[in-house]
Amino acid sequence: MNLLTETLAAIQPVDAALLDKAQARLDNKTKPLGSLGRLEEFARRFAAIRGDLAPDTSRKVIYTFAGDHGVVEEGVSAFPKEVTPQMVLNFLRGGAGVNVLARHVGAEVRVVDVGVDFEFAPEPGLIIRKVARGTRNFTKGPAMTREEAVAAVRVGIELAREAREEGVAMVGTGEMGIGNTTPSSAIISVFSGKPAAEVTHRGTGINDAALANKIRVIEEGVMLNEPDRHDPLDVLATVGGLEIAGIAGLVLGCAANRIPVVIDGFISTAGALIATELHPHVREYIFAAHESVEIGHRFMLEHIGAEPILDLRMRLGEGTGAALAMSLIEAGVKVLKEMATFDEAGVAEQNM
Amino acid sequence: MNLLTETLAAIQPVDAALLDKAQARLDNKTKPLGSLGRLEEFARRFAAIRGDLAPDTSRKVIYTFAGDHGVVEEGVSAFPKEVTPQMVLNFLRGGAGVNVLARHVGAEVRVVDVGVDFEFAPEPGLIIRKVARGTRNFTKGPAMTREEAVAAVRVGIELAREAREEGVAMVGTGEMGIGNTTPSSAIISVFSGKPAAEVTHRGTGINDAALANKIRVIEEGVMLNEPDRHDPLDVLATVGGLEIAGIAGLVLGCAANRIPVVIDGFISTAGALIATELHPHVREYIFAAHESVEIGHRFMLEHIGAEPILDLRMRLGEGTGAALAMSLIEAGVKVLKEMATFDEAGVAEQNM
Repeated sequence: MNLLTETLAAIQPVDAALLDKAQARLDNKTKPLGSLGRLEEFARRFAAIRGDLAPDTSRKVIYTFAGDHGVVEEGVSAFPKEVTPQMVLNFLRGGAGVNVLARHVGAEVRVVDVGVDFEFAPEPGLIIRKVARGTRNFTKGPAMTREEAVAAVRVGIELAREAREEGVAMVGTGEMGIGNTTPSSAIISVFSGKPAAEVTHRGTGINDAALANKIRVIEEGVMLNEPDRHDPLDVLATVGGLEIAGIAGLVLGCAANRIPVVIDGFISTAGALIATELHPHVREYIFAAHESVEIGHRFMLEHIGAEPILDLRMRLGEGTGAALAMSLIEAGVKVLKEMATFDEAGVAEQNM
Repeated sequence: MNLLTETLAAIQPVDAALLDKAQARLDNKTKPLGSLGRLEEFARRFAAIRGDLAPDTSRKVIYTFAGDHGVVEEGVSAFPKEVTPQMVLNFLRGGAGVNVLARHVGAEVRVVDVGVDFEFAPEPGLIIRKVARGTRNFTKGPAMTREEAVAAVRVGIELAREAREEGVAMVGTGEMGIGNTTPSSAIISVFSGKPAAEVTHRGTGINDAALANKIRVIEEGVMLNEPDRHDPLDVLATVGGLEIAGIAGLVLGCAANRIPVVIDGFISTAGALIATELHPHVREYIFAAHESVEIGHRFMLEHIGAEPILDLRMRLGEGTGAALAMSLIEAGVKVLKEMATFDEAGVAEQNM
């Protein structure tokens, strides 16, 4: 538990004076006050998190955590479980959605095997930090032990620390795990107190009967395991997932290391929710990439207090939304760094 | 009138069979069906417009049209009129918002002087095609003669033709013209039949008294000039602007030359609205970059039938929203071109 405790202790609120200084600089740029809207918010927050009014944005990394889910045997997904390792290999070959979008925005993708039920040969781009070969079926007992959950959180924390040492300027989260919208819906159901039916959607595209079954599975899992909503690690261990735990750790680690972290969609937000429940100031380091089609996502974002950047009706995960949002955040930072001031450009200022 | 007539005659509907073929390719990619949401729409439409299922996206150009407005003497803007040429010079030096964002997404900015009340020396990046030194005050008579309006439309058409000859793959629109939200609100007021107060906002940031005055100015201009809503060139000439006319022409020219055109915010959309009123199939070539803070914008987009890509509460114009949206459209096209299929990646397909 030591690393987790140390990490939580290291998380500080973002410096409000720096937020003001960054905004003052933006206000001198050749544009009407506030007219770049949320780009100004991104710039201000990024600068304050980094403690630098002209922050570098060149090194951007997306960590795509992969894990399997015992609950898949209950028929909750449209895809067979074998797709988790198959997609990991697709990521490593550069053919998946997240690879295409990360290349487009100049980000690197690193795949983290934190819990896939398959033995991968080591290869570049793959970080093997397997805690278990998938979770257990949470309709029969807890998905993980508390120790397993903490071990997976620690993987994320360690990756954030390594990112800081490498000089990574911005981190994105992503995930791959057949069945992982089910634990994500279970997590938001527990924290929000809302019935499973209100926070459960079709995942990768199941039909009506399968959706009814998925809701039943979540209800059963929550009823059986009685997760304690005041103990986020208990929620994570009983109805969560290994990749969700890894993301929670990455988000905590980014906050502790002052790295802006861009959370992708529904499953990543479940991980971020665990992190913000563990420490309230974590939310100040989070950028929510986009609004997912998954109906539980909106509740999670409200819980975290994050406003999504994009709404392109995406529901792929992997880090695809994070990649696109990272580029928009970088655009905001470039406004702060590169735009001319009224003085520099010899442009007259606003007179009302 | 010849070039305009020829251009209108050349505009064809986008090939529906190609839209289907592009979607079929997207459906074989390693992702749940439809899970990349609007990125798939962008890819499908871009491919069909270009007539190429693996279209190039490398050459992207934003045309920022600049013009002055006689109506500024009525006190409708928070900035003095001199800011129009000052900002043109800022564009040429690369210090404005559109320069920063265009560089970020790999697009080129070309500034078109179609009606600035200032004589620029020729320099790279500046296209001098001045039709008049600004419009006239539309509260005293028409803003332009019909001939002036058509001449400015022709500038845009010619630029689109040159873009096609150069191999430009995607065009963005932008504008600079102190006072130009006033003619834009007048245009949407005429086409929608809504009172000026419902479609008029604060532009670059005027106060309450100035907003009331701006609404009065628009009402007076519309009452005096009686623009014929069934004659888009009459609306453009009587209450429009030279940069709005240039954008209308660019949009028409892009449609005629099968170049996807990304319209920026409120003023650009006023230009696009004139174009779609001149030819109904034009809308199939348009991508709406973002939802502007200007309240009349939503009505315009509904009129055109375009769904905005971004909503970042921006209201700067220049082509800033277009720059960001062009990168998202390009991301969609790369999904179509670069993602692996299920077969290529050896990934099992969906079973429901």
